[in-house]
Amino acid sequence: MLLAPSKKALVPFVSVANMMRLVHHVGVEIFLKELTDAIEADFARWPEFDKTPRLGSHSHDGVIELMPTSDGQIYSFKYVNGHPKNMAQGLQTVTAFGLLADVATGYPVLQTEMTVLTALRTAATSAMAARHLAPKSSRTMAIIGNGAQCEFQALAMRAVLGIESVRLFDIDPKATEKALRNLAGSGLETVACTSAQAAIEGADIITTCTADKAFATILTDNMVGSGVHINAIGGDCPGKTELHPDILKRADTFVEYPPQTWIEGEIQQMPKDYPITELWRVVTGETEGRRDPRQITLFDSVGFAIEDFSALRYVREKIRDTQFFEELDMIADPDDPRDLFGMLSRAAG
Amino acid sequence: MLLAPSKKALVPFVSVANMMRLVHHVGVEIFLKELTDAIEADFARWPEFDKTPRLGSHSHDGVIELMPTSDGQIYSFKYVNGHPKNMAQGLQTVTAFGLLADVATGYPVLQTEMTVLTALRTAATSAMAARHLAPKSSRTMAIIGNGAQCEFQALAMRAVLGIESVRLFDIDPKATEKALRNLAGSGLETVACTSAQAAIEGADIITTCTADKAFATILTDNMVGSGVHINAIGGDCPGKTELHPDILKRADTFVEYPPQTWIEGEIQQMPKDYPITELWRVVTGETEGRRDPRQITLFDSVGFAIEDFSALRYVREKIRDTQFFEELDMIADPDDPRDLFGMLSRAAG
Repeated sequence: MLLAPSKKALVPFVSVANMMRLVHHVGVEIFLKELTDAIEADFARWPEFDKTPRLGSHSHDGVIELMPTSDGQIYSFKYVNGHPKNMAQGLQTVTAFGLLADVATGYPVLQTEMTVLTALRTAATSAMAARHLAPKSSRTMAIIGNGAQCEFQALAMRAVLGIESVRLFDIDPKATEKALRNLAGSGLETVACTSAQAAIEGADIITTCTADKAFATILTDNMVGSGVHINAIGGDCPGKTELHPDILKRADTFVEYPPQTWIEGEIQQMPKDYPITELWRVVTGETEGRRDPRQITLFDSVGFAIEDFSALRYVREKIRDTQFFEELDMIADPDDPRDLFGMLSRAAG
Repeated sequence: MLLAPSKKALVPFVSVANMMRLVHHVGVEIFLKELTDAIEADFARWPEFDKTPRLGSHSHDGVIELMPTSDGQIYSFKYVNGHPKNMAQGLQTVTAFGLLADVATGYPVLQTEMTVLTALRTAATSAMAARHLAPKSSRTMAIIGNGAQCEFQALAMRAVLGIESVRLFDIDPKATEKALRNLAGSGLETVACTSAQAAIEGADIITTCTADKAFATILTDNMVGSGVHINAIGGDCPGKTELHPDILKRADTFVEYPPQTWIEGEIQQMPKDYPITELWRVVTGETEGRRDPRQITLFDSVGFAIEDFSALRYVREKIRDTQFFEELDMIADPDDPRDLFGMLSRAAG
């Protein structure tokens, strides 16, 4: 068996099918709740992480990004693309995969699909932020933009905050119909609305998750009443925003990693002295989150590498002692590490 | 078959075992020669590529790097670590894997192991540089440092330049013995030497490929005679060099991507006005390579993302219509791209 790789050379790989099996094995809402806690635990030790803005390769139709981070013990990165025009060809706007590696040796220890996992971690991050920023008694949320992220957001807010009712709006009624169908039987009351204005009526939490790669105004100032929490997750590249700047002027804005949010988030529209708070400081208790029932809070979420780190770490724990992974022969492992050529030669036999 | 992924969701994956099968299927020397040509073809269109220094995560024991590039049609990146202390634990100093993706959609189209492939592409890049810089009549090479890269270097120089004799030295005689064993039957004359000084005697090409993460002086000025080509490939991180600066003062130095080489290469020891030539300008004919038989040429090689791009592109072509790959279920591909949650729900069945 000259070609049989040794144990050290094998990297556990979670395919899309296995990720879905794992999610159902754990239960979608439990998965979202545990993932929310995993992300919160890593936000609570934010200073321990190496942080860098993601490395993007921009092209006419979209962007391909690498998002690395490390806590000194474990390194992670995610490969993710964003191609809004993909949908018209029947392709995903966002696809992703991720990797964990051992910092001490540089050896990969996990590779997973992250298209499904990113949807889950984005929703879990929103829920984690809302736990600190939304009104305590939140029961109703609005979701503007009923695409791939929509149902994950609704279920995470239900699992973590006890949201009971979801008001849905999309410029394409078919997207809303899809969300209604998928959320039937979830225990959530769902209300299809004919405008963004109608959707946010009575909502404690307003989530915007639209996908167009352009400056857009999904919400204007006159639409937003006091006391709400806005969860703006659709903005994730330069030139892409969802909120009118007047809303930001009235809101207290919380962000993940400022150097990235200034480039990609809603705050790219604001002057550089616009006050922002890093969410991790709220998680550690260093700074207050919501302090007033009339306050408008805004989580200007663009997604950060530490959230992927948390998700990968969580999946690594959950697949232990399960069948939900394969092993990839990804690392050459000669008996004598200097004898890579000898390994190659012997493989000729 | 609710969990069966569609064709679009599958990414060809070349494992270590399959990469070795592919190399033997093609033939090691033909593989090295074709890869040299593939790299040269991409150097010839250097300005078409997006270029960025690699993104390194440095730790006490080593570094984990991401090396992306794109020619506007195809995007590639390599994950690679460098951990000199790994060897003492029986692990590889360098392991790697790589990915190609379609720029228009962001979808990955190939993932391969790159530990073996990096060794091959590094040797092919050296051979490509030597084709332009080494004396035309080169028949003898010295290799200082007989680790994992050694035999690949020797065979690439034989395949591409017609080198007939290799003089070997390593501070560990066991490394040299390993190289002698592996090169027996290759058609190369091999000579084990007891010092670097002895090894370079009569050599037209001197390759240094040592691995220690420290400033070291493998070659001093008095050792190097006129007319030789030095191929310094062992330097690949800040604080790691192999040559005495006096050698650089006498040599004409050629580099891959200056912003990276100034950080990682031999030239990190030199003042910022030290003259260097970009190798791609020699390949296009814009600048002269070797112009004088007494000239000392130095290829200060640190490895650049475009070389990995070329190697991945070459492997993608070579596996077509072969069995040397598997398909990874890496990309979620719902029938309706907005219905990621529906895909997840249906997988519960």
